[in-house]
Amino acid sequence: MVNSDRLWKRIFELAEVGKQKSGGITRLSFTEEDKAAKTLVASYMKEAGLTVREDAIGNLIGRKEGKTPDAPLIVLGSHIDTVPNGGSFDGALGVLSGIEVLHTLHEQGVETDSPIEVIAFTDEEGTRFQFGMIGSRAFAGILADEQVEGAVDSNGTSLAQAMRESGFNPQAIADAARKPGSIKAYLEVHIEQGKVLENRGLPVGIVSGIAGPLWMKWVITGEAGHAGATPMGLRKDPLAAAARLMSYFEEEASKYPNAVATVGTISVKPGGVNVIPGQVEFTLDLRDIDEEARDEVESRLIDFANKVCEERGVDFHLETLQRVPPVPCSEPLQQVIRQAVRQEGLEDFCLPSGAGHDGMQFKELCPVGMIFVRSKDGVSHNPAEWSSKEDCGQAADVLYRVVSELSRNEHPLV
Amino acid sequence: MVNSDRLWKRIFELAEVGKQKSGGITRLSFTEEDKAAKTLVASYMKEAGLTVREDAIGNLIGRKEGKTPDAPLIVLGSHIDTVPNGGSFDGALGVLSGIEVLHTLHEQGVETDSPIEVIAFTDEEGTRFQFGMIGSRAFAGILADEQVEGAVDSNGTSLAQAMRESGFNPQAIADAARKPGSIKAYLEVHIEQGKVLENRGLPVGIVSGIAGPLWMKWVITGEAGHAGATPMGLRKDPLAAAARLMSYFEEEASKYPNAVATVGTISVKPGGVNVIPGQVEFTLDLRDIDEEARDEVESRLIDFANKVCEERGVDFHLETLQRVPPVPCSEPLQQVIRQAVRQEGLEDFCLPSGAGHDGMQFKELCPVGMIFVRSKDGVSHNPAEWSSKEDCGQAADVLYRVVSELSRNEHPLV
Repeated sequence: MVNSDRLWKRIFELAEVGKQKSGGITRLSFTEEDKAAKTLVASYMKEAGLTVREDAIGNLIGRKEGKTPDAPLIVLGSHIDTVPNGGSFDGALGVLSGIEVLHTLHEQGVETDSPIEVIAFTDEEGTRFQFGMIGSRAFAGILADEQVEGAVDSNGTSLAQAMRESGFNPQAIADAARKPGSIKAYLEVHIEQGKVLENRGLPVGIVSGIAGPLWMKWVITGEAGHAGATPMGLRKDPLAAAARLMSYFEEEASKYPNAVATVGTISVKPGGVNVIPGQVEFTLDLRDIDEEARDEVESRLIDFANKVCEERGVDFHLETLQRVPPVPCSEPLQQVIRQAVRQEGLEDFCLPSGAGHDGMQFKELCPVGMIFVRSKDGVSHNPAEWSSKEDCGQAADVLYRVVSELSRNEHPLV
Repeated sequence: MVNSDRLWKRIFELAEVGKQKSGGITRLSFTEEDKAAKTLVASYMKEAGLTVREDAIGNLIGRKEGKTPDAPLIVLGSHIDTVPNGGSFDGALGVLSGIEVLHTLHEQGVETDSPIEVIAFTDEEGTRFQFGMIGSRAFAGILADEQVEGAVDSNGTSLAQAMRESGFNPQAIADAARKPGSIKAYLEVHIEQGKVLENRGLPVGIVSGIAGPLWMKWVITGEAGHAGATPMGLRKDPLAAAARLMSYFEEEASKYPNAVATVGTISVKPGGVNVIPGQVEFTLDLRDIDEEARDEVESRLIDFANKVCEERGVDFHLETLQRVPPVPCSEPLQQVIRQAVRQEGLEDFCLPSGAGHDGMQFKELCPVGMIFVRSKDGVSHNPAEWSSKEDCGQAADVLYRVVSELSRNEHPLV
């Protein structure tokens, strides 16, 4: 249906912008690379017959009008910023496949009932300001002034200042916000960034929800001691306690269909081969697309930690670093995507998104639907990130079917 | 029996040598502080009526002749070097209580059948050359020329060079060696450096053996991945595997009366809150006074690691950093010490030494016996290191009884 050669060519044209010697891509928000990428993507939007503009936060928007001008909007979005030394597909594929669908409709002379916008949201990754999904937050009307003033890059430049330097007015960000009810559907194609589709031999999957990360810092304090002179029974070893907790985290998360628990950092003090640690610090990243399930796992972990630490005479202290609510994908949208996938002759396989995406910000704004594309070896945020031309084309074809269906006034969704 | 006031006064006189602003003591081997400490201790030896000399490795020796000049020797020893910013008791107490016993015998005009030497062994701690028990190794005839040439301090000065600068001849170290069979007993009083005696409310304990440390570096390699996008069932998380191993190490060691297992250092790569680790590295310090038991624990741990890592699809690699054989204390000497302890009206409680001591070098040289003194809060290698005057005096009294018993020709030991 779509022109997958054109889509594929554009992915690699865009990948040249911000290309590093390493082969990776670095495009941080409100930089020259970001601007150059927007200019290139705007040219694709124009070729697709779209009206192009930037909103107050710098979201790049290409719009196709609908036959029913005040009909609720369909939004196809993702982002074109990258992590440092990132890959060619993360974000870019979603924006370019949205443009490809509208380009195809344009070439076919199709007029849709609903207006459709394809949007490259500003700074999804959060690399520059340690604070991401900036464009989608503004779009949802939930980007606070303090965040705009308070988020600062490694040179001490605030987001507000960076916006000003790029010709944007931080006072006007409210203008970027859309009204709840004004959007019929938000749809995003994105690489999976995992191996689930690859392991099942499927090119695309239907996302059931976007998991919200709960990040906790655990500090367990026991009693340092001589590794030789302290019998096992007299120890208050916080690392031995942590080992029990880590095994429990793994077991508990494994009991839930979509929960994942990860200890990604750990350190001990004082840290000598022959010294029983006095303190251990580790982080836990706990996710689920079901907030109740995540809360349940969390409270079970804390109950267990209380029990283990009391038995062992060690203390633990918990700090919540972030608690992002998960966003379930819209059931009716999932149905429309399932149907499109089946029409493509594929298995309509659903899977959660463990990674965060712009759609997370739209919980109160509009129904969210996502289509995942198989990632080679599950790799992302890396120059080796790869999805095949066939799989990218397949996803754009599914999106084409979904957009065609949803953009009809008769479609029951709103 | 002994003069505990004199012993106590000497402990704190000696503690002034190498005293730091922090209150801790730093006396490294073949330094000015070491020399000054030896000069002071030599003066105590002379006051105790002993003939004083240094041997070829710098061991400071005070000798009391016996009535039977060719009777096997009794040696009372420990060391007067310290770790950086160390305490007043570690090592010093053993040397000074030995001198105190001989001083008391001298004052009482007691002539013993056996000759008795009290020895401050050169460099037990190993701080300067990252290689310890230098004096006791030479005494046992097991200090190799390569070690003397190869051991180098942080300024690049070799042990051989440091010896030369202090007026010793590295070529002559064989002269410091004693012959197996020439020594009836080696006896050492030392602070416990743990809390076992404190917890049992006992001033002294009889050491059952000196545990040998086995140090291993474990590297477990799995597969790094996105903490959100990798379902629990698709993970090859080396830290989750390590958690299982650490719990097993603890359980297994706890099954043996004297085994201790300690994971004192751990690190993960790449180390991000939202990244499943790809590799984890940790150390294990495994000790027992029974080498067979230690070997048994070691092989059980490795068997378990093989099983767990195979199940989880992760690899592990083991590197042995050191493997020091444990040294059991002599049963007959333990009997003599037990009797002396009971004569003092105390419980004759036995415990292993988890830390290493000069006696470890005498496995092939002579029977080894050790008396532990209660350590406040189990602290050592620290300015807060403390044993009470009463406990120090008590240990010296026990040593006095043991020496009186062993120095008789009738005593069956040899």
